[in-house]
Amino acid sequence: VSSAYIRQASEARKQKSNLIKTLLSQRRLPEEGWSDSTIELFLHELATMDSNNFVENVGVGEREARIVNNLVARRHYNLGHGIGRSGDVSAIQPKAAGSSLLLKLCTSMALQALKLAGVHSTKACLVLPVATGMSVTLVLLALKRQRPDAKYVIWPRMDQKSCLKAILTADLIPVVIENLLEGDEVRTDIPSVEEKLNDIGPSNVLCILPTSSCFAPRAPDRIVEIAKICKKYDVPHVINNAYGVQTSKSMHLISEGIRLGRVDAYIQSTDKNFMVPVGGAIVGGPNKQFIREISTTYPGRASASPVVDLFITLLGLGASGYKALLAERKVLLNYFKEQLAIVAEAHGERLLDTKNNPISLAMSLGGNYGDDPTFLGSMLYTRCCSGCRVVAPKAKKVIGDLSFTDYGAHINDYPVPYLTT
Amino acid sequence: VSSAYIRQASEARKQKSNLIKTLLSQRRLPEEGWSDSTIELFLHELATMDSNNFVENVGVGEREARIVNNLVARRHYNLGHGIGRSGDVSAIQPKAAGSSLLLKLCTSMALQALKLAGVHSTKACLVLPVATGMSVTLVLLALKRQRPDAKYVIWPRMDQKSCLKAILTADLIPVVIENLLEGDEVRTDIPSVEEKLNDIGPSNVLCILPTSSCFAPRAPDRIVEIAKICKKYDVPHVINNAYGVQTSKSMHLISEGIRLGRVDAYIQSTDKNFMVPVGGAIVGGPNKQFIREISTTYPGRASASPVVDLFITLLGLGASGYKALLAERKVLLNYFKEQLAIVAEAHGERLLDTKNNPISLAMSLGGNYGDDPTFLGSMLYTRCCSGCRVVAPKAKKVIGDLSFTDYGAHINDYPVPYLTT
Amino acid sequence: VSSAYIRQASEARKQKSNLIKTLLSQRRLPEEGWSDSTIELFLHELATMDSNNFVENVGVGEREARIVNNLVARRHYNLGHGIGRSGDVSAIQPKAAGSSLLLKLCTSMALQALKLAGVHSTKACLVLPVATGMSVTLVLLALKRQRPDAKYVIWPRMDQKSCLKAILTADLIPVVIENLLEGDEVRTDIPSVEEKLNDIGPSNVLCILPTSSCFAPRAPDRIVEIAKICKKYDVPHVINNAYGVQTSKSMHLISEGIRLGRVDAYIQSTDKNFMVPVGGAIVGGPNKQFIREISTTYPGRASASPVVDLFITLLGLGASGYKALLAERKVLLNYFKEQLAIVAEAHGERLLDTKNNPISLAMSLGGNYGDDPTFLGSMLYTRCCSGCRVVAPKAKKVIGDLSFTDYGAHINDYPVPYLTT
Amino acid sequence: VSSAYIRQASEARKQKSNLIKTLLSQRRLPEEGWSDSTIELFLHELATMDSNNFVENVGVGEREARIVNNLVARRHYNLGHGIGRSGDVSAIQPKAAGSSLLLKLCTSMALQALKLAGVHSTKACLVLPVATGMSVTLVLLALKRQRPDAKYVIWPRMDQKSCLKAILTADLIPVVIENLLEGDEVRTDIPSVEEKLNDIGPSNVLCILPTSSCFAPRAPDRIVEIAKICKKYDVPHVINNAYGVQTSKSMHLISEGIRLGRVDAYIQSTDKNFMVPVGGAIVGGPNKQFIREISTTYPGRASASPVVDLFITLLGLGASGYKALLAERKVLLNYFKEQLAIVAEAHGERLLDTKNNPISLAMSLGGNYGDDPTFLGSMLYTRCCSGCRVVAPKAKKVIGDLSFTDYGAHINDYPVPYLTT
Repeated sequence: VSSAYIRQASEARKQKSNLIKTLLSQRRLPEEGWSDSTIELFLHELATMDSNNFVENVGVGEREARIVNNLVARRHYNLGHGIGRSGDVSAIQPKAAGSSLLLKLCTSMALQALKLAGVHSTKACLVLPVATGMSVTLVLLALKRQRPDAKYVIWPRMDQKSCLKAILTADLIPVVIENLLEGDEVRTDIPSVEEKLNDIGPSNVLCILPTSSCFAPRAPDRIVEIAKICKKYDVPHVINNAYGVQTSKSMHLISEGIRLGRVDAYIQSTDKNFMVPVGGAIVGGPNKQFIREISTTYPGRASASPVVDLFITLLGLGASGYKALLAERKVLLNYFKEQLAIVAEAHGERLLDTKNNPISLAMSLGGNYGDDPTFLGSMLYTRCCSGCRVVAPKAKKVIGDLSFTDYGAHINDYPVPYLTT
Repeated sequence: VSSAYIRQASEARKQKSNLIKTLLSQRRLPEEGWSDSTIELFLHELATMDSNNFVENVGVGEREARIVNNLVARRHYNLGHGIGRSGDVSAIQPKAAGSSLLLKLCTSMALQALKLAGVHSTKACLVLPVATGMSVTLVLLALKRQRPDAKYVIWPRMDQKSCLKAILTADLIPVVIENLLEGDEVRTDIPSVEEKLNDIGPSNVLCILPTSSCFAPRAPDRIVEIAKICKKYDVPHVINNAYGVQTSKSMHLISEGIRLGRVDAYIQSTDKNFMVPVGGAIVGGPNKQFIREISTTYPGRASASPVVDLFITLLGLGASGYKALLAERKVLLNYFKEQLAIVAEAHGERLLDTKNNPISLAMSLGGNYGDDPTFLGSMLYTRCCSGCRVVAPKAKKVIGDLSFTDYGAHINDYPVPYLTT
Repeated sequence: VSSAYIRQASEARKQKSNLIKTLLSQRRLPEEGWSDSTIELFLHELATMDSNNFVENVGVGEREARIVNNLVARRHYNLGHGIGRSGDVSAIQPKAAGSSLLLKLCTSMALQALKLAGVHSTKACLVLPVATGMSVTLVLLALKRQRPDAKYVIWPRMDQKSCLKAILTADLIPVVIENLLEGDEVRTDIPSVEEKLNDIGPSNVLCILPTSSCFAPRAPDRIVEIAKICKKYDVPHVINNAYGVQTSKSMHLISEGIRLGRVDAYIQSTDKNFMVPVGGAIVGGPNKQFIREISTTYPGRASASPVVDLFITLLGLGASGYKALLAERKVLLNYFKEQLAIVAEAHGERLLDTKNNPISLAMSLGGNYGDDPTFLGSMLYTRCCSGCRVVAPKAKKVIGDLSFTDYGAHINDYPVPYLTT
Repeated sequence: VSSAYIRQASEARKQKSNLIKTLLSQRRLPEEGWSDSTIELFLHELATMDSNNFVENVGVGEREARIVNNLVARRHYNLGHGIGRSGDVSAIQPKAAGSSLLLKLCTSMALQALKLAGVHSTKACLVLPVATGMSVTLVLLALKRQRPDAKYVIWPRMDQKSCLKAILTADLIPVVIENLLEGDEVRTDIPSVEEKLNDIGPSNVLCILPTSSCFAPRAPDRIVEIAKICKKYDVPHVINNAYGVQTSKSMHLISEGIRLGRVDAYIQSTDKNFMVPVGGAIVGGPNKQFIREISTTYPGRASASPVVDLFITLLGLGASGYKALLAERKVLLNYFKEQLAIVAEAHGERLLDTKNNPISLAMSLGGNYGDDPTFLGSMLYTRCCSGCRVVAPKAKKVIGDLSFTDYGAHINDYPVPYLTT
C-alpha cells in the first residue's frame, strides 16, 4: 500500500478521535453533526467506562447494572446504571464514569441549544428523564422547600390538563386567572394577575406559572409583564415552555422576562423540541443555584434513556443541523399558514388572526358543521391527518376541585367553534 | 419443494402467530421465553399500530412522535409516544394503540411475576418509568390527596438515602424509629413504632414506611407486625421492597402482612429485580382502587423506555426462565455464604449471623484494618470487585433536618466495623 | 379509546400486511419505497419460515444454519441457510422457505429494475453473490459447457484488470482487439473484431466480450455492431456492463443489441449500480434458458448476504426512489461536467470531448505536471477526494501472457496525460 | 469522584485498547472471547479507516462504497469495499485500510484455528467468500494453470452433489472410484485409485480429490494412503474437508497426509465448522506459495460478508471458547450415539458400526418401513427434527455425464436401507 493511503487512513482515525476530544474539552454541540457510526463508536467507548462493562468485573452488590436480556443491553449500548445518585439526579456515579460523562456532555449541549434558540442568559440547565408535567411538579416541590408556607400557584388559564395536574400533584392550590379576548386572540389578563397576587398575599404564593407555548387562538402568556410583577413582589416565576424552544418568539419572551424582571425556571419537553421519544424535559434558568436545588430534590436514581436520546440527537444534528431545523420550521409554518388560509376561504371560513402565536394556527368552523363540529377531527384522523383538534363550545371539564366551561378554548364563551393545529 | 416442507414452514409461521395470539388473549408470561427474533417481530408489529408509523400519516400537531435521529428511532423500535395521558400515566393513548397495548401487556406480566415471586394476594400493579425513590414519592403524594392533614411518615431507620429523600421531596416529615440490636442483627423496634404512632396521633400519620429488603446486618423490617398495627389504627402502610422480589422471604413477609394486617402498596425496582437498566419501578398492592389512584396522580406523559425494557425481559425469560433465575439466586447465595465464611475465618474474622436477611451478607472487620477499614472497599474495587461496602463506626450524616451517627450501620454504636455485600 | 382510533390502528396494520401481500403476489418493486421498520418486519417474518428459526426445531444434520454468535445472527436477521442447492444456485431450499422466497422476490425486483433502467427485452436475470469479475467467469464457464471446443474470447481492449482475469480464470484465451482513436475518444475497432473472428474461426470463439461502461476517454464499445456480428456468425455475446445500469445510454446500447443482433448475457455489479457493499452481480439476458444454465453451473450453495443487501435496498427505494436516483445522477453529471470544464480552463487544460461516454469524464493534464502527473492523484486523495485516476503515458503492465503499454489508457500512445473520474 | 474510581474507569478503557493492540500485534485468536460490545467497538474503529467513512471524503469514482440504504450500512458496520483487488482476492485495498486489516486478522485467526483443530503443519490459509463447492472449483482452476494439460480428477465416490459439480464447473473430467464395503462401512478402494492413476497417466491427472468428512456409513477417505500415492506419482492432492474441522480424527488424517505424503490444499466450510451463515470457506495447506496462487486466481473483488462473520465469531469465541466447542461436540456425539443405539434396539433395528466416521451416525431401517422408508424422514421433519436423511436402495441419479445407482449410499447395493444424521 502506498504510504499516501496509509497516511490517509490514520489521518481519518485521528479525525474521529479529534471530534471526540473536541467534544470532551469544549463540551459544546459539534458545529457539524456526527455520523451514526461516529456516535455509536463514542457510545461504545463511554460504555467501556462503566463498571458493568469492565472486562474483569465481579459485581456482588444489589445495583450492578446487570442486564439479563441481550436486546435490552443492545438498545442501551450496555449503559445500565441510569443517572444520578440518591442525593442528586445529576450527580456523578462512581461506578459509572461513562454514563456520568454522557450526562454532563448532554447537559452542556442542551444548555448551548437553549442559548442558540434565543435565551442567552440561561446559566444552567437540567436534563430530566421525566416529561414536562412531572418536571413542573419537581420544580414546584423544589420551590416548596424554600417557601414552606406558600400554598398557592397563580396560573393564567391554559386548557391543557398536564400543567394543572402538575400543580395538584405537588399538593398546591391553583389560582386560575381567566384570560381576555383581544380580537381573535385569547390573552393574559395582567391586571387580574397582580390583583389576585395582592389578594392572596405574595408570601402565600409559591409562584406564578404562565405558559409560553400553546395552541391558537390562545397566545403565549405576557411573560415580560409577569416577570416584572414577580420581581416587584419577590415571587418566583416558573414558565411552562413545553414546545416553545422551536420558536424564537417564545424564547425571546423568556429572554426579555429574565432581562427585565424575574424568571426562576423555564421548562421544555425534549420530545416536542428535539424530536426524541416522549420522556424527558429540560429545565433552564438564569440562576445556577436554583437549578442545582431542583436536581437535589429528585429522590434516587433515574432512567438514562431520555438523556441518551437527546445526547444522540444533539450530536447527530450538530449546531448547524439544529439551526437548520429551526429555520426550516419557520418557513414551513408560513407555508402552512398560507395554504390553510386558502382552504378556509374555499369553505367560507377564515384563519383566525393570532399573530402573537408563533407555533399554532386556528381556523373557524363557522356554521357548516351542524351540531357536532368535532366530527371533522375524527374524519381528519381517519384520513391519516393527526394532531388537529376541534374546539366546540360548551364543553365542560372538572379537574380536581376546579370546573371549566368551554374547556379547550382557554376562555369562556369563545365566539366560534374552530379547528386548531 | 415437497409439500411436507411447505406445510412445515407455514406451520412455523403459525407457531409464532400463536405465541402472539396467546399473549394477547391470556396477557400472561409465556411459559417458555421467546427468542430475540420473535420479540423483535412483535415489537415491530406493535409499532405499526402507533400513528407515527402509519404508512400515510401526516402529523400536524405538536406531539406526533417525530423522531429525527435514526439511531434513536431504532433503539425505540419507532415507538415514540411514550406512555400515559395527562390524566393518568397508565391510560390508553388514542394515537398510540401499539404503545398502549405494550403497557397493558407489560403490566399484566409484571403482576403475574409478583404473584409467582410470592405475593399471590396482589390485585393490581403499576409499572412506573421512574425508579424506586421517585415511585415512593408518588405513592406518598397519592396518599396525601386522601389524607390532606397527615404530615408524618413513620420510618424505621434504614441508612440508604433515597427513601428518606422520597419522604422529604413529598414535603412530609419523617419520624425516625431507631432500630434494636438482636445478636448481630439490626431489627425493627415494634413497640417504639406503636408508641410513636400514638404520640403523634394516627390521623396525623400519612403512613408507616418500612423496608423489606436491605443490607446485612440489618434485617428486613417486621412487616407483619407493622401491618397489624396499621390495620389496628387504620393507618396506611407502604413498603419499600426495593430489591426484595428476588427472595421468597421478603415476598412472604409482604404476603403475610396483607393476610394478617394492612398493606396499601409495596414498591420494587425493575433493575434490581428484573435485571434491566436503572429507571423503572413496580408498585403492587391488594387494592385495585388505590393503585389506580397512584396512576392518576402522575402528571402528564412519561417515557416508555423502562416499560419496554421490562416487557422485552419478561418475554425473553418466560415464566420458566424467571423461576429458574429465582432458584439460581438461592443456590448462589448459599454458595457465597459458605465461601465468605471460609474467607472470614482465614482472616480471623467471622460472617455476621444475620439469618433473617435473605439477600445480603456481612463479615466483621475486627481489628486488622487499622484506622481506616474503608480502605478495604477501595482495594476490592480496584481489583474489579464492585458492590461491597465497608461500614466503619462514627460516620456522621445530615439529611434534610435529620442527623445520624454511625450512618450506614442503621443503628448507633454497632459493635464492630464490617464489610457488607 | 374511541372506535375511530381503533379502526385506524387496525387499518394501519392492514396497510403493512397489504404491502407485503402485494409484493408476494406481484413480485414487483413497490411503487413507493418501504420504511426501515416495514422492511425489518418482513425480514423477521421471512426468517420465521426457515427451519433454524422454527420454535421447536431440533437440527441433527451438518447443515442446520446454526449461528453461534449473536452479532452475526442479528446482522443476518437469523437467515443462515444461504441460497441455492448443490445443483442450482437459485434453487429453492426445502429447509429454508423464507430465504428461498427472499431470493425469488429479489430476482423479480432486480429484473424489473433492469427493465426500468432501459433493457425492456430482458427476460430473466440471476442475482449472484459474487462480484462482476467472478460472474463473468461463471458465464464463460456456462458457455463452455455448450461450446466445449471454443477456447477464444474476443475482447476489445479495456484497461481494467478484472475482466481479463475473468477470462484467464476460466482457462480461456483472450484475443485482444486494440481500439481506435476518434477525436479524443477511444473506440471499438469493429472491422478488426470481425476480421479476427474470421481468422480464428467462429466455432473456435467462445464469445465476444465487449464493455458497455468504462472510464473516459474510452467510450462504451459499439455494442450494436458487435451484436450484429455475433448474430451473423452465430457466436455468443456477453457484455461487461459493470456500472452501466445507472445510465440510459449504456442500457440503450444493450437494448438495441438485443433487438438488432445477438446478446446472450449482460453483467452488472450490484454495488456500483445499486449502492450496496461490494459482493454481488446481476446477470441479465433475453433468453431464460441460458440464464438458468448459468444458475446450474454454480457448484453448491452460496452466501445470501449480497442478495439480502439488494433486497433491502430495492424495497427501500421502491420504483419511484430508484427512478429518482437515475434522474438525479443525470443532473449531477451535467453539473459536474460544467464545473470540471471551468476548473480545466482555469488551469490551461481542457475537458476531453467524450460525448459517447455517459458516465465518466476526463480532463487533460497537458504540460503542467512535470515528470510525474500521477502525483496529482495522490494529492487529491490526501485532500479526501477519492476515485480520480491519473493516466500517464508509457505505463507497462503484464497480465497472464499479455503485455500492454500505456496501460490505463485503453490504447497505445494516447496523445496526452489525463485525469479521469 | 474518588480517584480510585477514576483510575478504575481509565484502567478499564485501557484494558479494551490492550485487547485490540494485542490482536493487532499478535494476530492470534484472543485466549478469552471478546464481548459483543468490544467486538462492535473494534468494527466501528476498522470502518473508520475505510475511505467511504472519512469525515471529509468526496468520492468521485465508480467504486466508492456508497451505501444508499441505512439498514444495509448498519448490518455491514459501514464496511462497503468488500475484499480483494482485481489481481488478488486477498490483496490490500488502498481505499479500504480497515477492511484490508480485518481480512488479514481474520486469515491469521483462521490459520490458528486450523492448527488448534489438529493440522499444525498448515502454513497458510485463505478465507474465501464462496462456499465449499465454489472453493473447490477455484482450487481446481488454480491447479489447471499449473498443469494446463491435465484434464482428469480422480475422485472416490461421495454421493453429495456439490463436489462433483465443482469438478464439472471447472471443465474437468471426474474419474469416479467406486468404494468398498468393509463390515457396515463404505471405504476407499486404494488399489483402484492407484491403478486408475496409472491407466490415465499421472501427467493427465489434475489431482486426486478425496473427502475427509462425510455421512455414515461412508467413512472419511483413506487420506494418508492417497497422500502417499500423490507423493509417489507427483500428482496434486486436494481434500474436501467440508465439515471435518470440528473433529480431531479428520484433522489428524490430513495432518498425517501432509507428514507422510503430499497434500496441496484442504477445503472446509465456514458455516459447518464455525457456525456462521452459509457463504464462506477456508482453504488451508502446507505450501504458502500455492495458497497465494489460489488467491490470485480469483478474478476481481468479493463480498467481505462471510469474512466479517468469521471474524466476529472467532473473536467472540476466543481460543478457549473454540476449544470448548470442539470438546463439547465430542461429548454430545457419544451421548447421541448411546441414545440412538437404544432407540434402534427398541425398534428392532441397529446402529451401523461405523467406527471410522467421527461425525455422523447411521441406523438400519430393516424391514419395518414397507415400500418407502423415506417416509420416515418426512415424518421426522414434520415433527421438527431436521437434518436426517433416509437412504433407500435403487435411487438413480444422473449428474453431468455420470449416472449412479443407489445414489446417497456412496456405493452400489448397500445391503440395507438406513437413516443417517
